[in-house]
Amino acid sequence: MYKLHLGQLSAAEFMAEYWQKKPVLLKGGFANFVDPLTPDELAGLAIEEEIESRIVAQTSPGQWQLETGPFQDYSPFGEQGWTLLVQAVDHWHPEAAQLIEPFRFIPNWRIDDLMVSYSTPGGGVGPHLDQYDVFIIQGQGKRHWRVGMPDASLQPICPHPRLLQVTPFVDCIDVITEPGDILYIPPGCPHDGISVDASLSYSVGFRAPAQKDLLTGLADYLIEQDQSGSRYTDPQRLPLTDIGRISDSDLDQVQQLLLGLVNNRALLASYFGSYISHAKHELDATEPEPHYAVDEIIEYLEEGSVLARLGGLRICYHQAGSADDIQLFINGLTITLPAAALQFVQLLSEQVQLDETACQWIAADQNRAGLLTELINLGYWYFVE
Amino acid sequence: MYKLHLGQLSAAEFMAEYWQKKPVLLKGGFANFVDPLTPDELAGLAIEEEIESRIVAQTSPGQWQLETGPFQDYSPFGEQGWTLLVQAVDHWHPEAAQLIEPFRFIPNWRIDDLMVSYSTPGGGVGPHLDQYDVFIIQGQGKRHWRVGMPDASLQPICPHPRLLQVTPFVDCIDVITEPGDILYIPPGCPHDGISVDASLSYSVGFRAPAQKDLLTGLADYLIEQDQSGSRYTDPQRLPLTDIGRISDSDLDQVQQLLLGLVNNRALLASYFGSYISHAKHELDATEPEPHYAVDEIIEYLEEGSVLARLGGLRICYHQAGSADDIQLFINGLTITLPAAALQFVQLLSEQVQLDETACQWIAADQNRAGLLTELINLGYWYFVE
Ligand SMILES: O=C(O)CCC(=O)C(=O)O
Ligand SMILES: O=C(O)CCC(=O)C(=O)O
Ligand SMILES: [Co+2]
Ligand SMILES: [Co+2]
Repeated sequence: MYKLHLGQLSAAEFMAEYWQKKPVLLKGGFANFVDPLTPDELAGLAIEEEIESRIVAQTSPGQWQLETGPFQDYSPFGEQGWTLLVQAVDHWHPEAAQLIEPFRFIPNWRIDDLMVSYSTPGGGVGPHLDQYDVFIIQGQGKRHWRVGMPDASLQPICPHPRLLQVTPFVDCIDVITEPGDILYIPPGCPHDGISVDASLSYSVGFRAPAQKDLLTGLADYLIEQDQSGSRYTDPQRLPLTDIGRISDSDLDQVQQLLLGLVNNRALLASYFGSYISHAKHELDATEPEPHYAVDEIIEYLEEGSVLARLGGLRICYHQAGSADDIQLFINGLTITLPAAALQFVQLLSEQVQLDETACQWIAADQNRAGLLTELINLGYWYFVE
Repeated sequence: MYKLHLGQLSAAEFMAEYWQKKPVLLKGGFANFVDPLTPDELAGLAIEEEIESRIVAQTSPGQWQLETGPFQDYSPFGEQGWTLLVQAVDHWHPEAAQLIEPFRFIPNWRIDDLMVSYSTPGGGVGPHLDQYDVFIIQGQGKRHWRVGMPDASLQPICPHPRLLQVTPFVDCIDVITEPGDILYIPPGCPHDGISVDASLSYSVGFRAPAQKDLLTGLADYLIEQDQSGSRYTDPQRLPLTDIGRISDSDLDQVQQLLLGLVNNRALLASYFGSYISHAKHELDATEPEPHYAVDEIIEYLEEGSVLARLGGLRICYHQAGSADDIQLFINGLTITLPAAALQFVQLLSEQVQLDETACQWIAADQNRAGLLTELINLGYWYFVE
């Protein structure tokens, strides 16, 4: 639906020059931009308990307020100087979810969610930096954006315990964005966007786990799998008098045990796929009641149905070698499939919509149809036609 | 107080031949053995909410019952066929804690706790195996012990969800233990002890973390220290169409990030010391009220006081090189000290009692006295004279 124009750049040039390196304005990145939702629809989402929303307001210079949703009433915030931010809108709003698709030259697992913000005139979250890449798409209205390069001399300031802003920064981009303009901002680049009038913006955010997240995830995975692994052993130990000391050889073995986990490539792949495919925010999955039988599904697929993938569903796969089994990861679930299923796995993970042709191809094979039936019964794919 | 007799063996021979290799009966290991506590005292501990106790009873052949404490009344269990087991008795009973001391040719961090059990005639926990080394000291009464070698063909049986027993095993030790006899049993060796008459036994247990424990501990440590570490980065990424795939180079970097943590030797030492010095069971620490001032402590030390270390307090240290700072770990707490403090660190970690001479030596130095004051104020050392 949305088509990305990188100006003079090819996707390869964008990746080589800017991705994770420096911010850039993609002027008119989406030509003739039409907002996928209205401020009213956004407010409708912010009413929901299970949708994460917050309002950031500047009450006076240097004084900030942060409220978390749900929100029923915006009158306390007045006519200007505040922003409503709603997280994971792609989970709830299929049209808005379309905004992510043009960025899928970057792998699924790296893409996080779509955050949508509505700002009143003068509204913004203040100068700050994030740990993640983001494409910020300007929707209706205009916004004055300033973006700088990473700068170790910037100091964090916390005008509110949950707002991490930074001291004033030198900008390399200073622009008034208009509908369809896109700002790409790498991790660590300070940025500040102040709404000129009432405006919408859409942030396609990325996911880049930190060392601690990876380790915690691996520990949780081992616990979940009820895998203890081997224990510390010391059959070679000598009696000693320096009994308080943790010796270097004690530590060596502790390290070897940890290395044994981290160097287990099969474990690593299984863990990472399961971990990274898990959505951070709630999904809008509704299981069909009663569940479908495979035969029913085959009938619908043959008849010319079209299926859509649930918004925000995270799907990726790993295959060690081209003859090896494939592990397909869907929202933390792992499904092991033979190497021959690669085309099907790629179809599921690359297409957010399965058209008639794809559906008929799936219907022609009992295994494919069987797996799709399970996924439909989980509420992960659903009929749109 | 208790002196260990290894028979013909030196400690070095015991370690070389048996430790973590095969079970052995140390006949008369403690000569003229006198129980450090009575069954009544044990029952007194089992009344306490904060002390972990359980009763295992064989109600009929193959039928087992497990109840967790505290216990007020033993009449429901009858006159025979049951055992009361109390964990971490060394935390609560200084005389019983003495039973651990003769085994301190093995480093502090490897020693876990003292479990004490009281069995009625015919009582026992059934044939089972443990993941840890144990020295089982026979107290009053007699017990019929059978011990076998590790055997992969043994099947786990669960006569009760929390009792993990094994199928019948071939024994290499079959003995009636008498007061002062000690059985050493390495991890994985099946064993079964059936009380001949009313008897007490004392298990000095060891600690050997599994891979999962080590990883979980490291993850918790990073969270506690609020260390996120570096994040996944991919500035070299090319645009791609196979967007579902977690590529080998994606995984390579995940692995490198994890290896970066595990190969950080300073982090590893700090983490492991903090982790392994943390007692699994509650300590009986009571902070003196009001806290002592250093000057007061120095006065008492000079006057000829004797101090005892809190039972079950775990203390160990690590020093990378002999000129480097020492990290002293006490029940999860880390204290960094200059290399010159080694003698003091060794004194604290090797002696469960600080005699007059030691106390006067500590009093002579403001830094030593200052640290000891803090430790006394935590309830970790206390005056006995
Ligand atoms: O939409 C906003 O007000 C803030 C957007 C932003 O800073 C981001 O997406 O990183
Ligand atoms: O004391 C008991 O009844 C059981 C002791 C035991 O099996 C052990 O300490 O491993
Ligand atoms: Co931002
Ligand atoms: Co045992």
